[in-house]
Parts: sequence; C-alpha cells; structure tokens
Amino acid sequence: MPEVKVYYFQLKASAEAIRMMLAYGGQEFEDIRLSNEEWAALKPTMPFGQLPVLEIDGKKYAQSVAISRYVGRKYGLAGKDIEEDFQIDQVMDFYVDLRTRALAVFHEKDEANKARKQEENEKNYYPVTLKKLHDIITENNGHMALGKLTWADFVFAGMYDLLKVVLKIPDIDEQYPSFKKLQESVLSIPKVKAYCDKAPKADW
Amino acid sequence: MPEVKVYYFQLKASAEAIRMMLAYGGQEFEDIRLSNEEWAALKPTMPFGQLPVLEIDGKKYAQSVAISRYVGRKYGLAGKDIEEDFQIDQVMDFYVDLRTRALAVFHEKDEANKARKQEENEKNYYPVTLKKLHDIITENNGHMALGKLTWADFVFAGMYDLLKVVLKIPDIDEQYPSFKKLQESVLSIPKVKAYCDKAPKADW
Repeated sequence: MPEVKVYYFQLKASAEAIRMMLAYGGQEFEDIRLSNEEWAALKPTMPFGQLPVLEIDGKKYAQSVAISRYVGRKYGLAGKDIEEDFQIDQVMDFYVDLRTRALAVFHEKDEANKARKQEENEKNYYPVTLKKLHDIITENNGHMALGKLTWADFVFAGMYDLLKVVLKIPDIDEQYPSFKKLQESVLSIPKVKAYCDKAPKADW
Repeated sequence: MPEVKVYYFQLKASAEAIRMMLAYGGQEFEDIRLSNEEWAALKPTMPFGQLPVLEIDGKKYAQSVAISRYVGRKYGLAGKDIEEDFQIDQVMDFYVDLRTRALAVFHEKDEANKARKQEENEKNYYPVTLKKLHDIITENNGHMALGKLTWADFVFAGMYDLLKVVLKIPDIDEQYPSFKKLQESVLSIPKVKAYCDKAPKADW
C-alpha cells in the first residue's frame, strides 16, 4: 500500500472530501493537521504554497478540486465515460462558483462593503443558486450528479459545514433539505463514518 | 457529423477555448454570438441560465471549464491517464483562482474598494502568482502542463486578451514572455488559425 499523507489545517473545509475518499477507498493515510506556525515553515516546500496537499509515496498533489477528482477516479467515484465525467464536472464548477462567491464576501475586510455584498447575494444570488443546486440534487436521487454517489458528493459533504457558516442562511437545512440529507448520506457510509468518528473534531 | 452549436456573447472570453478546440478537432459548429437582448430571451432555456453553452445534437453542456475539459478529452487534448489528467486539472484550478480573483476586482462596483483591492493584488498576489504561472509554462516547454499541447493551453490562449484587460499590468507580455508565446503557439495551429481568421472580431 502506498504511503499517503494529507496536509491541511486543523479544519475540515477543503481537505475533508479528500480524507473521506481515502477512507472510502480503504487507503490508510497520515492526517497531518498543521498549526499556522507549522504551516509557515512548510509552505515553501508545497507546490503552490497552498493547502490542502496530498502526498503519495513522496509525490505531491495540490488544488483541492483537482485532487478530489483524481482520488475520486482512483476509487470508482467518477463517471464511466467522458459524458458522465462531464455531468460531474459541470455541477462541480457551478458549486465552486457559489462557494467562491460566498467566501469572497466572508473574507471581505471592508465592513460596509461586506454588508452590502452579503445583502446583494441574499437578495439576488443565493435564492436562485441554492434553489438550483437543491433541484439538481433532488433530481439526481440525492446526489450531485448521475443519480449516484460520486466524488462531487464528497466535496459537497466535506464542505457543507463551512458553507453554512459562510452563507449565513439560518434555516438553510429546512429551506433546502437535500443539502443536509446529502451530507448525512456520505457521512453514514461505514468506512467514512469510521474515519469521521475517530478524526480530530473540527466545526467546519 | 453531429450538429454543434456554441452559444455565447459577442466576445472571446470564456467561449473562445471551446470554439478553437472544435476547430482544432475539425468539428463544424454554429458560432452563435448573442446580443444582450437575444440572451435575455434565451436565458431561461439554458441549463444554469449562464453562457457559454455547447449544444451537441440538441444536448446542452454548461460551465466553461467543464466543457473545455470534455471537448479536450474528445479531441486528444487530455492526459493519457489519471496522473496526467491531474497535472492539467491542477494548473487549471490554479489559473481559474487567478482569473476569478482578478475578475472580482474588475467587477467591483465600489470604486474605493476596487482601487484598494487592485493595489493589494498588484502588491501581494499578482507578482507571486504570475511568476509561478510563468515558471510552470516555462518548465512545461511553453505549455500549461505535461510539456505538450492540452486543453488547458486553449483555455489560457482563449482568455489571455481578457486577462490582460482585467489584470491591468501594462508590461505583462514583457514581464512574463511565456504568456504571449503560449497564446501565439495555440493561435498559430493551422486549423485554429483558419477559424480565428474568419471569426467575428472581438477585442477580448
């Protein structure tokens, strides 16, 4: 079995999908959760100076979505051909746009601007986008694509707790019940559950 | 030959990679360039209410990067296995991050905030990120990944004119000569050049 390491912070966020898929694939891995000080020392050794990084027998893989697709293809969580892979990629790009836009507001330093953008998103962007995502998941039998479990479900499930913090929609679980249900369905896969049960606790 | 249509605005931007790859693959297509009024009428019929959209025999494909990967895999512009595909995806995610961050500033409505963010990017983000991208292209024999032509090169080449407008770095071609060279190498592929020569003119 290859020697696998996942480098990330003491969070779920962008790394949790990767960790959960490794568990799903029965791949043991070293779950390296860095403090900011440890990261500062390690940063120059990482491909893009960013985390998460997956390391397999010394070879480093960066960029969380690219890693998730790669690991997903390894463990039978991708499509059966380029048509099916496209369906996964299409919804992933849509989801990443949402996440990026929400995170941009979350990280906005100017308070007045932050409030204005949050209001704008809440009024014009989130309702349409979240409803669309909810519809997609509902039409896909509780999954992101193809009506079955794929790596996109792991990405969604691993990031959902952070997404909720970032979106700031108090009744999101009730408004779009497919979200919580999808997360729970991934987290209840026995090998994934076994990993989650013994992983260090992190709110998001 | 399937009946193919590309729906987009009267721009290169996010659609040009797709158009150029179709030309590269010898696939004839209807190059539909919509005015804002035409788009308003068509928007409800499109998968995510966004452009570009690729249509093949009536089936619609949305999200520009997902489409580019899909078309790239069709025409031999992807990796030979999941390891190679990962190398392409990794640099694409890095590039998309850059593009997204630059576009966010470009579209910022608050002028003071826009100026502050542009300055912040110019000081802390663009130099490191563009240098990194330049190094990657240089190390890859003038390509985004794998040392050879892939769909990622088409994405870069199709978007470079817009990226320059958005980044606002006057001497970008001189500072990072691999960028212009990569664009020119894609645009000089005979089938791509034949398409570009007769395509409607657009600045970016």
